[in-house]
Amino acid sequence: MRPSGRDLSEMRPVSIETGFTKHAEGSCLIKIGDTHVLCTATIEDRVPPFIKGSGLGWVTAEYGMLPRATNTRMRREAASGKQGGRTVEIQRLIGRALRAGVDRVALGERQITVDCDVLQADGGTRCASITGGWVALRLAVNKLMKTGDVITDPLVDPVAAVSCGIYAGQPVLDLDYPEDSEAGVDGNFIMTGSGKLIEVQMSAEGSVFSRAQMDQLMELAEKGVSELVAAQKAATA
Amino acid sequence: MRPSGRDLSEMRPVSIETGFTKHAEGSCLIKIGDTHVLCTATIEDRVPPFIKGSGLGWVTAEYGMLPRATNTRMRREAASGKQGGRTVEIQRLIGRALRAGVDRVALGERQITVDCDVLQADGGTRCASITGGWVALRLAVNKLMKTGDVITDPLVDPVAAVSCGIYAGQPVLDLDYPEDSEAGVDGNFIMTGSGKLIEVQMSAEGSVFSRAQMDQLMELAEKGVSELVAAQKAATA
Amino acid sequence: MRPSGRDLSEMRPVSIETGFTKHAEGSCLIKIGDTHVLCTATIEDRVPPFIKGSGLGWVTAEYGMLPRATNTRMRREAASGKQGGRTVEIQRLIGRALRAGVDRVALGERQITVDCDVLQADGGTRCASITGGWVALRLAVNKLMKTGDVITDPLVDPVAAVSCGIYAGQPVLDLDYPEDSEAGVDGNFIMTGSGKLIEVQMSAEGSVFSRAQMDQLMELAEKGVSELVAAQKAATA
Amino acid sequence: MRPSGRDLSEMRPVSIETGFTKHAEGSCLIKIGDTHVLCTATIEDRVPPFIKGSGLGWVTAEYGMLPRATNTRMRREAASGKQGGRTVEIQRLIGRALRAGVDRVALGERQITVDCDVLQADGGTRCASITGGWVALRLAVNKLMKTGDVITDPLVDPVAAVSCGIYAGQPVLDLDYPEDSEAGVDGNFIMTGSGKLIEVQMSAEGSVFSRAQMDQLMELAEKGVSELVAAQKAATA
Amino acid sequence: MRPSGRDLSEMRPVSIETGFTKHAEGSCLIKIGDTHVLCTATIEDRVPPFIKGSGLGWVTAEYGMLPRATNTRMRREAASGKQGGRTVEIQRLIGRALRAGVDRVALGERQITVDCDVLQADGGTRCASITGGWVALRLAVNKLMKTGDVITDPLVDPVAAVSCGIYAGQPVLDLDYPEDSEAGVDGNFIMTGSGKLIEVQMSAEGSVFSRAQMDQLMELAEKGVSELVAAQKAATA
Amino acid sequence: MRPSGRDLSEMRPVSIETGFTKHAEGSCLIKIGDTHVLCTATIEDRVPPFIKGSGLGWVTAEYGMLPRATNTRMRREAASGKQGGRTVEIQRLIGRALRAGVDRVALGERQITVDCDVLQADGGTRCASITGGWVALRLAVNKLMKTGDVITDPLVDPVAAVSCGIYAGQPVLDLDYPEDSEAGVDGNFIMTGSGKLIEVQMSAEGSVFSRAQMDQLMELAEKGVSELVAAQKAATA
Repeated sequence: MRPSGRDLSEMRPVSIETGFTKHAEGSCLIKIGDTHVLCTATIEDRVPPFIKGSGLGWVTAEYGMLPRATNTRMRREAASGKQGGRTVEIQRLIGRALRAGVDRVALGERQITVDCDVLQADGGTRCASITGGWVALRLAVNKLMKTGDVITDPLVDPVAAVSCGIYAGQPVLDLDYPEDSEAGVDGNFIMTGSGKLIEVQMSAEGSVFSRAQMDQLMELAEKGVSELVAAQKAATA
Repeated sequence: MRPSGRDLSEMRPVSIETGFTKHAEGSCLIKIGDTHVLCTATIEDRVPPFIKGSGLGWVTAEYGMLPRATNTRMRREAASGKQGGRTVEIQRLIGRALRAGVDRVALGERQITVDCDVLQADGGTRCASITGGWVALRLAVNKLMKTGDVITDPLVDPVAAVSCGIYAGQPVLDLDYPEDSEAGVDGNFIMTGSGKLIEVQMSAEGSVFSRAQMDQLMELAEKGVSELVAAQKAATA
Repeated sequence: MRPSGRDLSEMRPVSIETGFTKHAEGSCLIKIGDTHVLCTATIEDRVPPFIKGSGLGWVTAEYGMLPRATNTRMRREAASGKQGGRTVEIQRLIGRALRAGVDRVALGERQITVDCDVLQADGGTRCASITGGWVALRLAVNKLMKTGDVITDPLVDPVAAVSCGIYAGQPVLDLDYPEDSEAGVDGNFIMTGSGKLIEVQMSAEGSVFSRAQMDQLMELAEKGVSELVAAQKAATA
Repeated sequence: MRPSGRDLSEMRPVSIETGFTKHAEGSCLIKIGDTHVLCTATIEDRVPPFIKGSGLGWVTAEYGMLPRATNTRMRREAASGKQGGRTVEIQRLIGRALRAGVDRVALGERQITVDCDVLQADGGTRCASITGGWVALRLAVNKLMKTGDVITDPLVDPVAAVSCGIYAGQPVLDLDYPEDSEAGVDGNFIMTGSGKLIEVQMSAEGSVFSRAQMDQLMELAEKGVSELVAAQKAATA
Repeated sequence: MRPSGRDLSEMRPVSIETGFTKHAEGSCLIKIGDTHVLCTATIEDRVPPFIKGSGLGWVTAEYGMLPRATNTRMRREAASGKQGGRTVEIQRLIGRALRAGVDRVALGERQITVDCDVLQADGGTRCASITGGWVALRLAVNKLMKTGDVITDPLVDPVAAVSCGIYAGQPVLDLDYPEDSEAGVDGNFIMTGSGKLIEVQMSAEGSVFSRAQMDQLMELAEKGVSELVAAQKAATA
Repeated sequence: MRPSGRDLSEMRPVSIETGFTKHAEGSCLIKIGDTHVLCTATIEDRVPPFIKGSGLGWVTAEYGMLPRATNTRMRREAASGKQGGRTVEIQRLIGRALRAGVDRVALGERQITVDCDVLQADGGTRCASITGGWVALRLAVNKLMKTGDVITDPLVDPVAAVSCGIYAGQPVLDLDYPEDSEAGVDGNFIMTGSGKLIEVQMSAEGSVFSRAQMDQLMELAEKGVSELVAAQKAATA
């Protein structure tokens, strides 16, 4: 039934190549099917003004898409002079998601910026960014722990995200672009390795949904996230 | 337990004053406790380029906050030269929410822009904007139906929104600002008059939550939305 | 002769509702006929860099118009990325006008920002902003005097403003929108409670005027301002 | 008494060099003492959208100041990414002033843009811009009449402007920078060759003024403008 | 002598992986040592206004650098609201260079946009962008020829670029970042496969150079470009 | 053969009027034929952050063109909200060129900003800006030496620039606008008074060139620069 021939509860193939760029303190190229996102984590000693002197750390994220990551070329945001509403919304989501998995006291007064740049898009770029962004963050924090700058691990539980939706009347896991553009309802589920919820967003486009459907999507999401967390663990072992 | 002395499942007082401004095709001043939002609906004959000629209508929203709607003055977005990330995120949410309750074929090829401007803020401005925005939309559509420009009512089911959260370990309905700034988990629930879901967003700030907690918040939301829909109906009767 | 049926030297009804919002140190909703402006005054301990350390205070103003304050919706300035020329011109005028009535030594090294946001427009928004803005400023200064932060009253004389113009060949007081859009000559007169001039702007659009006409407008303005000052005094008594 | 040693009612030396640049349809370098402004007039066949098809012409103006026209270097507006409030206010004033002297029917459906760029500033740049701008406009219109594109002269009466103020307690004509920065009251008077008023702006900075003072400044302005109009006529004869 | 241990006239290893992204009409990931640039070519049927209807084609380029392509994170240009001067300069150079190798009549009235995004930087990103950009362009044009949209090959001669400079007093080929940041003189040489010059830029930073030195760099550049052209041919064969 | 009737190796008339504006520490109006550029040099005691405390000075440049410096009016960059790519490229070039002729230790920790504003354009504005900019810089440095703020002359060798190109198949010196818009190859040559090279840029537009042609242009440039340096010396003697 699915354009890709996948089962309703089947994820696309996941691959995570760590160390994709040499300068960043942590980096990976995550591929969820044909969605490819380059994630880098940058450690800086300064923190935003509102927490200066608090002893707490900060994790933030930025998101971008190369102009031809998509089927038709999109205008470069740097050229148009501002980040679009969708970009702003996504990067705020990534930042919130990653922060939820961080013990900011243990991190200490420093900032880690996670950049997620989509090299190729086929649906689910925000979820791939969160999942890959956590890997880059993990690698950067590993460095801090190796040098002794951080003693207690601030990343107690992995963070990963997956989308689910109602496609052709059926609940499906990990929407690709053809599904995403047709789905009446779709949701993003951000969870921890131990199955706790961080953020849930479910939205109907020109439609509505019931609590029963919401529960079905939740089941699928739990399955998907557990597979993603396994891939994260394998990549950072 | 709540700073305001309200019960866990008690809404703040709701008032909706329609016709607050004379130029708009529909308008109201909605007050949810000390959160006051002026909502206006503007009908225009043009639609965005991507649906030109499709015969479908469009509903969109913009959101703003007066500089001193809040406890300390915020910089005016027009002066700083761009809408902040929070503003962009909220106005996209309001637009999606209202569109979900619109039969765009019945509306016909015209656009209705709902402006939600917060005159005074005390938590829950996005939910108040959706609830009040629907009232302004309802009034504007009434005008179109009175003149015969629209025959079939495109607003089949009211749309309203409420926030719920975990405050001091307890699930509470309709967070005000003191609660919102302390809540570990908070969510926005956008629903129809008949109890269907349009959008659900639940988010933990520096925390996580369980599915059981998610279900508790959902119960509260259903109660809150049904009260808001009653107020919408009374105001537009 | 006037579209509203008013006498040539008759003001529109004036109402000033103080305390319209709860957060600002001073606030009012001023209504001059169908022109409604929400004015708030915010006290801050910092001053602009160019007077830092001088012991002098500063009063500044910002002006905005809600998108549907007018008959047809105007683009939101925050969305278009900058304040238009008209906005910039008006807010500079309001700031200058209010500062002219302030003893900046008595105010001490602090800044008061007066925000004037037009909720509904029907001509004369800049004059209503000055008149209402002074009320907000008065209330904020009252607070400073009550707490003893300010000892000598820095507001020695009220400041108010009214527009006059040549409409259909006749000098008229307090132009509303239908008059304003037709008037060949119009002027804004900013004066103190004791009848001194602060700023006079008279301008012919596609026309010219004589000194005799200028004098006629000045008479009308004196009458109008004295009525406005009475309303200010009543509201802040 | 005046820093320059001038009499109270004495203008600075005025010179107008026409044809200062070769590309513009009309151009001059106007010098009012040490204030030097390059004015060019550009004729274009298009008009702004709001008068398209009306048969009416349009005159508009832009104003700029070279970064080192002033005593200390100012930031280049093109580099800072926007025109400052003062620039916006001035160029709107110049445009209104010049339009007041134009018969827009006679001009026909075309636009003339007058650019006023201050090469060196010593007070009174907006008045010099209006006076010199009218000369550039006159020269451009002459070209249109010579080619027969315009038959009836749309410039029936010259437009010129001068500033006056209260300096050291005395009314003085044509303020230079040292006077302008000290004056308690200053005004800009825009008039026609036949002595009619186009725009009057009088403003007290941290002060107030009386109607008697206003009348004194007006006398001085009439003297100044008549001298400027004589210079305009000599330059364009 | 060189930090990398290379001979004076030795290039870094070059690799060109074509088809790196699936959506673009042509794409490659070019690696010149540790400088990695993703180049995509997008074909569109529209051309810029200034050649509309001329029958001529257009080739243009845009350039970007991911925030953490460099040793320390740079601010994202989309977030800062504009492309920096260096970016603007580089993308104009790439566009001019590629256009010089295109027969715009043979291309026909269509536009090809070449996006060069630096994933990892180690000196010479603009030269790598030109060399890789030409490969993406070649692949896109191949598609047009395969479909018959273009009959005569518009790319008669490959275009490639290399940098040379005076490092530690010696002329060296293909500067990497440690060399580039120390070099007194450096130049970019853009040439065709047949050895013709398209653009030469040589620049001394805090230094000067002689014609003899200029000639030495030119020799090295010819060697480097011929190796790059060989790599281009191998990749697109 | 040349539109102006000049010989292939003949410069346009050069004139340099120093002290053109009174406020700047150094200024001149340079005329290369019909290309007129006003250059001013501003001395400031602050330096950019990246050299603070280094004891080194800095020279930077900004470039602008008045809207009607050209044959058709160009949009004012301050109004369009950013400097165009061409402007950015040119002002970076001017800054680099001037810095190459400065002993930054001798200058001491201060910044000189050279503003080059084109009053009238007829080709070669960037070269005229460099040549005139150096004169303004020379005059400003003279002031610093006169006051004893600078002891050792930091300007050891004049800097001047000229363009050359292949026009109608012939190498020509100092392209004016009609030649520049037709030339297949053109180059800018920045050199010192003693004949050393600072920057060379040669570029083919829709064409290529050989090393022999490059050498011919270089000969012409040497002739042109020596004439410009003589004019610089005469103007600043």
